[in-house]
Amino acid sequence: MSLIVQKFGGTSVGSTDRIQNVAQRVLAARRAGHQVVVVVSAMAGDTNRLVTLAQAVSSQPFGREYDVLVASGEQVSIALLALAINEAGGKARSFLAHQIRLRTEGVHAKARVASIEAPILSDALSQGEVCVVAGFQGMNERGDITTLGRGGSDTTAVALAAALEADVCEIYTDVDGVYTADPRIVGNARKIERISYEEMLELASMGAKVLQTRSVEFALKYLVPVHVRSSFDESEGSWVVAEDYEMDGEVMEQVVVRAVTCDTNEARISLIGVPDQPGIAYKVFRPLSEREIVVDMIIQNASREEGRTDLTFTVPKADATEAEGIMHDVVEALGARGVKADAGVAKLSVVGVGMRTHSGVATRAFEVLSANGINIQMISTSEIKISMVIAERFSELAVRCLHEAFELGTDT
Amino acid sequence: MSLIVQKFGGTSVGSTDRIQNVAQRVLAARRAGHQVVVVVSAMAGDTNRLVTLAQAVSSQPFGREYDVLVASGEQVSIALLALAINEAGGKARSFLAHQIRLRTEGVHAKARVASIEAPILSDALSQGEVCVVAGFQGMNERGDITTLGRGGSDTTAVALAAALEADVCEIYTDVDGVYTADPRIVGNARKIERISYEEMLELASMGAKVLQTRSVEFALKYLVPVHVRSSFDESEGSWVVAEDYEMDGEVMEQVVVRAVTCDTNEARISLIGVPDQPGIAYKVFRPLSEREIVVDMIIQNASREEGRTDLTFTVPKADATEAEGIMHDVVEALGARGVKADAGVAKLSVVGVGMRTHSGVATRAFEVLSANGINIQMISTSEIKISMVIAERFSELAVRCLHEAFELGTDT
Repeated sequence: MSLIVQKFGGTSVGSTDRIQNVAQRVLAARRAGHQVVVVVSAMAGDTNRLVTLAQAVSSQPFGREYDVLVASGEQVSIALLALAINEAGGKARSFLAHQIRLRTEGVHAKARVASIEAPILSDALSQGEVCVVAGFQGMNERGDITTLGRGGSDTTAVALAAALEADVCEIYTDVDGVYTADPRIVGNARKIERISYEEMLELASMGAKVLQTRSVEFALKYLVPVHVRSSFDESEGSWVVAEDYEMDGEVMEQVVVRAVTCDTNEARISLIGVPDQPGIAYKVFRPLSEREIVVDMIIQNASREEGRTDLTFTVPKADATEAEGIMHDVVEALGARGVKADAGVAKLSVVGVGMRTHSGVATRAFEVLSANGINIQMISTSEIKISMVIAERFSELAVRCLHEAFELGTDT
Repeated sequence: MSLIVQKFGGTSVGSTDRIQNVAQRVLAARRAGHQVVVVVSAMAGDTNRLVTLAQAVSSQPFGREYDVLVASGEQVSIALLALAINEAGGKARSFLAHQIRLRTEGVHAKARVASIEAPILSDALSQGEVCVVAGFQGMNERGDITTLGRGGSDTTAVALAAALEADVCEIYTDVDGVYTADPRIVGNARKIERISYEEMLELASMGAKVLQTRSVEFALKYLVPVHVRSSFDESEGSWVVAEDYEMDGEVMEQVVVRAVTCDTNEARISLIGVPDQPGIAYKVFRPLSEREIVVDMIIQNASREEGRTDLTFTVPKADATEAEGIMHDVVEALGARGVKADAGVAKLSVVGVGMRTHSGVATRAFEVLSANGINIQMISTSEIKISMVIAERFSELAVRCLHEAFELGTDT
C-alpha cells in the first residue's frame, strides 16, 4: 500500500462531468489499495469570473481581500469533488488551508508554504477516507487567507507529499509528460522517463509550463518523487526525481544532455558605450526592478571605445517597450552612447546534469549552430545548462539541429 | 459613538453595483461616528448556482461537503464588499466564521450558533476598521464548516450584536419595516414603530418573512435591539425591542393588539371517530414527525360517537398530500372512521402583548368574524396571540375586518 498525492488542475475539474471523471480516477487508486490525498485547483473559468467581479468594485484588486475572494474557487471544487467521490461509493472529506494549518510566509498572492500540520489528514486516511485538499491557498501567521500565485496548486501538492512522506506526488496535466524538446517543433521528440529536479528546475524556469518552479524547488528540498502525467489517459508520464532515486532497482540513466528548449518570450536590450565606472550596473538595473521588470540574462563587454563598456540584457517581451523607455533616461543620466532593443530574439537552452562531468557540450552546440549559419548574440552558462540568444526566426531550426546533434530523439 | 451591526441580504449585494451602494451606506455610518460590523449573505443567485453544481454530481447534496460548497458564496460577497469599502476610502477587513470562532452546534445546514469569540473584531474596530463578516456560516467543534439554514445571516448579525454588546442590529431588507397587516391586503396598514420580541416571534413564525425566527429568539435572549429597515432608502423602519426598552425617554406604546396576520400555507387534516384511548396522539403524530412533517395547530374534541374522539391538525400545504396518505394508514391501524383533508384554509392570527392584561380580545375577534359570516374551524391561543383557521376564500376579508375592528390602521 502506498500513499499517493494526486493533483488535478483547473481544466481537469472544469465541469461537473470532469469532476466525476476525477472521482473515478481517485477511486481506481483506492481500489488498487492506495491511500489518496487529492489536491485540486478552482474550476477552469471560475477564477476569471471572480477576478472580473473584483475589478468591478476595485481599482486595486489585490491584497488580503483579493486572496479571500479567489480562494473561494478552490472551496467550490473540493466540495464538489468530495460530493462526487461519496456519490460514487467512496468516502471523501474536503480540507481548506486553515483546516490543515497550511501556514504561509510572504506577501498576498505570492505567499510561500512554510509548514503543514498533517495529523488531521493522517487520521482521515487511516479511516479509509480520501482527503480532498484545496490547492493554491494558505493561511498566514495572522490567520488571514493567502494564495500561492499562478500554479500554486502544484506547490500545495508537493508540500503535502513532503509533509505526509507520500510515496509519490502525481501531477495530472493536459500533456502526458516532459519531452526532450517541444513535440510541435521536433517530430521525434521523446518523452523523458526520468529527469532530475535540477534539470526540471532549468526547464520549468524556461517556460516549459508543466510544473510551477517553486513546486520543483520544494520537491528537490524534500526529495519528493513527482510523476507528471496525463489527466486524459493511463499512460506512464515523466518522473521528476533525485539523480540517485531507484525505480525498479535502477537509478536514472546518465545522459549528458536531457533536453533542448527554446523561449521566445524575451527581448534583448543593449546599452552602448556606457562610461566604465563603479556603480554602473546598479544605476542601470535599479529602475527596472523598481518597476518589477524581471531581468534574465546579463552580459557586460568591453566597448570598442576606450574606457566604456557595452551592457546587454534580456527582459520579458511584454516589458520590452517600458524597459527601453527607462533605458533612454538611463543613457542620458550616465552619458552613454545609446540604447538598442530587439524583440525578435529567442533563448535556446541545452540542459543536462551530465554536463557537470562532460566537457565539450558547449563547443558542440556552437559548432552545430555555426554549421547552420545561426549567429549567437549572447551566451550564459550554469553547471547543467547552456543558454544562447539567437535571432527568433532561427529558433525552430536551432532546436531541431541541437536535438539531433545530441541524439535526443526516438530512433524513427 | 455607537457600535452598529448591519446586515444586508442577498438581494442587497446581488450585483457589484449594489455592493458599491452598501459600501456607501456603511461609510455613511462611519462618517456619523459609529463603529460598524457588516454581515452579508451570498450574492443573490450565487447559492442557486452552487446548488445546481452540487445536484449535478450528487444525488444526496447535503451534509458536510454541501455546507463547504454553499458557504463559499458568503466568502465571495465579504471579499467584494471589503474591496469596495477600501476603494471608497474606508478601511475594511473581512472575516469568515472560523476566523471569529463562530462555533455552532447541531446538524449541517441547520446548525445553531453556540458562541463567538469577538476579540479579533473588537481589535479591528478599535483600529477604525469596518468588519465585514460572512453570514450564514459557522464552524462546529471539529472545525468543519457549517451553515445556519435559510435566513441564517439574520442570526449571525444578531449573535454578533450580542457578543459585541452592540447598540443596535440593523437588518436591511426589501421592505421598510413590520406592518400591522400585509399592506397588499389592507390599504391603511401602518408601519409599526416598535414591537416586542415576543410579538415579533409570533409574527415571524407565522410567515411574516421579515426576520428569521431564530434570530428573534437570539435577540430576545440577549436583549439586542433590532432595527428592521429598507435597504433602498433612509427612512426609519421598525424597532424590535424589549417591552421596557426606552427610546427618546419613552417605552413602547401599550397597545392591546399589535398586528393581524394571515398564513395561507397550511392545510387542515381531520381524523374522525378515533377510538379514545391512551397513546392515540403518539400513534397519529409519530409517523408524521418521522417524515419530518411539521404539525402546527392540534385540536382534539369529543366525537359525536360515544368512546371516540375527533382529532384535527394543520400541516404545511406542501406536505398535505403525503400527510393524508400517512393518515389513511393510521385510520386503518387504529380502527378510526375516516380522514378528511382540506387545503383551502387560512390561519388568521391576532397578536399583541396587551392581550396578557386585556380580556375580551378573543370575544371581539369572534364577534367580528361572525358579523361578516365567516365560520371559524379551529381556534388556538397563546398568552399574546389568538389563531383561527377559516376558509381560505375569506382570508383577505377577515384580515381587513379585524384590522379595522382593532383600530390598527392609519387615520386616512
